Amino acid sequence: MKMRHGGDITTYSKLYQNELIDFSSNINPLGYPKGLKEFWKKHMNEGIKYPDIKYRKLKSHIAHYLHCNEDEVLVGNGAMEILDAVYNLCQNVEICYPSFGEYLDRAKIRKLNVTSIPLKDDLTVDMKLLDETLQENTIFILGNPNNPTGYRLEKDKLLKIYQMVREREGLLVLDEVFFEFCDYDYDSIELFRAYEFERVVIIRAATKYFALPGVRLGYACTNKRLIEELNKIILPWNVNIFADLAGQYIFNQEVYMEDSKKWIRSEREYVTTELEKLPGIKVYPGDCNFLLIQLQNHLEEEVLTFFLERGILIRTCSSFQGLGNNHIRIAIKGRDDNNKLLEVFREFLQEN
Amino acid sequence: MKMRHGGDITTYSKLYQNELIDFSSNINPLGYPKGLKEFWKKHMNEGIKYPDIKYRKLKSHIAHYLHCNEDEVLVGNGAMEILDAVYNLCQNVEICYPSFGEYLDRAKIRKLNVTSIPLKDDLTVDMKLLDETLQENTIFILGNPNNPTGYRLEKDKLLKIYQMVREREGLLVLDEVFFEFCDYDYDSIELFRAYEFERVVIIRAATKYFALPGVRLGYACTNKRLIEELNKIILPWNVNIFADLAGQYIFNQEVYMEDSKKWIRSEREYVTTELEKLPGIKVYPGDCNFLLIQLQNHLEEEVLTFFLERGILIRTCSSFQGLGNNHIRIAIKGRDDNNKLLEVFREFLQEN
Repeated sequence: MKMRHGGDITTYSKLYQNELIDFSSNINPLGYPKGLKEFWKKHMNEGIKYPDIKYRKLKSHIAHYLHCNEDEVLVGNGAMEILDAVYNLCQNVEICYPSFGEYLDRAKIRKLNVTSIPLKDDLTVDMKLLDETLQENTIFILGNPNNPTGYRLEKDKLLKIYQMVREREGLLVLDEVFFEFCDYDYDSIELFRAYEFERVVIIRAATKYFALPGVRLGYACTNKRLIEELNKIILPWNVNIFADLAGQYIFNQEVYMEDSKKWIRSEREYVTTELEKLPGIKVYPGDCNFLLIQLQNHLEEEVLTFFLERGILIRTCSSFQGLGNNHIRIAIKGRDDNNKLLEVFREFLQEN
Repeated sequence: MKMRHGGDITTYSKLYQNELIDFSSNINPLGYPKGLKEFWKKHMNEGIKYPDIKYRKLKSHIAHYLHCNEDEVLVGNGAMEILDAVYNLCQNVEICYPSFGEYLDRAKIRKLNVTSIPLKDDLTVDMKLLDETLQENTIFILGNPNNPTGYRLEKDKLLKIYQMVREREGLLVLDEVFFEFCDYDYDSIELFRAYEFERVVIIRAATKYFALPGVRLGYACTNKRLIEELNKIILPWNVNIFADLAGQYIFNQEVYMEDSKKWIRSEREYVTTELEKLPGIKVYPGDCNFLLIQLQNHLEEEVLTFFLERGILIRTCSSFQGLGNNHIRIAIKGRDDNNKLLEVFREFLQEN
């Protein structure tokens, strides 16, 4: 069975009848900010009301966090609802692969004309090919960092891509749901504010970094005119009251954010270094909280089964266009879990 | 300003700088089932996990409640997300007006060919006109009961409409989000089970009857093949974990459901009778928890302002195609609030 998404712990737990450590979905191992539970409870005790249809408070918190204006903020039931709305603005989309499967799936559902181009062998964007293939009036979507590669665009390269898109009167969509996991090099929002977010949409979410996958809070930053158009497309009351409340709490948690950044960096470095010592696999040293691994003599299914039998769920990658059946993706978790994963990996490579 | 939806209490409270009683949105005045808060808290203490991507538990609770099979259930981020997905199945839609504005708005967004036909003068479906206008391969959407009229289709009429749709190889979509407020005459799900839900989708929601507008839980019942198609269109993890949990709790609350039904019936009868005594207005005696009122010598804006100045928000109706600017809609609430509304109405009609 092809794994379309990570995180389907229910299916695999049933099959293997044990508690699994989930390395298939890539959320912050620290869990969501501790005080959020109390914040929710406090509001529950005051009574759950109709959410503000305009999400005024929520947008003001997001704008403050992103350093943009409130009328440059869009909120969504997860990041993909926002992408889905953006897909209504254009008839054409260009996608690099491998990348998050929903880019293509949603494009098909919205009946867009799709141009797919491969990343280069080193899994970075092929600028020459992009320049040759990118049409007028086309959405160009990029994960930044990209999933499953984990690679973040260099600032100069991003600006060059933006230039190409603008020359063709298209729209650059940056899926930055993993942004906060990366080392701070540049901030796209800061970068594109100088251009008043003209022809660029930056999508982020509470899902991964704030460990709130079940709460569904995505948000995007773009120019005011586009926000108005997108607000017409997005369903009213699309954001749940708990997500609305979460957004009024989490962005103030500076200690949590610093701790998360530190933890992720140190664990990513540790796991990358340890994995690179192992023969028979190639590790792509990504910038965020997951790592793509190429298996040199094995198929993804062998690894999946071996790890499941030892209580670990990894993400197979054959559902990602261009990766074949010899790649897996693992999340970075806490040290104990990471050590368990490394142990099983060593065992696997010794035995097979 | 045209009121596109009820429930925008934030805007009006700001304008009038007082606490408003919200008669513009029509949710169960009993509030949501009491134990839900504790149920949520219990689960929050166990840790908020990734929701099951297949919503297995949730669907099993809904199927039990609706008396259908689990594979005949679809879940959505509110009812309108489900309608929006259904709109992907066909190029044509026929809509009666006045009806909920989103039917038309979403059709435009999905670029469907729309045929709009008026209801008859008595605000019931014009069967002759429908028979003349309904095309092949067309979605026909009906509120049952309809918003803002509050009228529920008679069973025989519904079956005739279904027959027309089937003969034309179309799809009948019943928006039944107000179903539980009506007196029990027939259940569409029971009715269409005999047809294996062929060419019919019945949409319901926790929003209104279970008073959970902020929680976003819509669900639909249709045949298994269509469910599979719709599941491809709907975004993964579209239902928030709190909505998922709510659905595992509310449908077992039989005392709450009985109390709600009784309360609504008795208050609806009371308010209808009292309003019918007033000169200068025509009350449409709807079947659920709101009433449409035609003003004979006044404009909606006058009533809106008069009521707002007295702490009550009502729903103006000019945004409903076909109603002009002399209709308002009010929700049925608890007795004290209802009396307040009646009082203000008497005052308005005496003074004006």
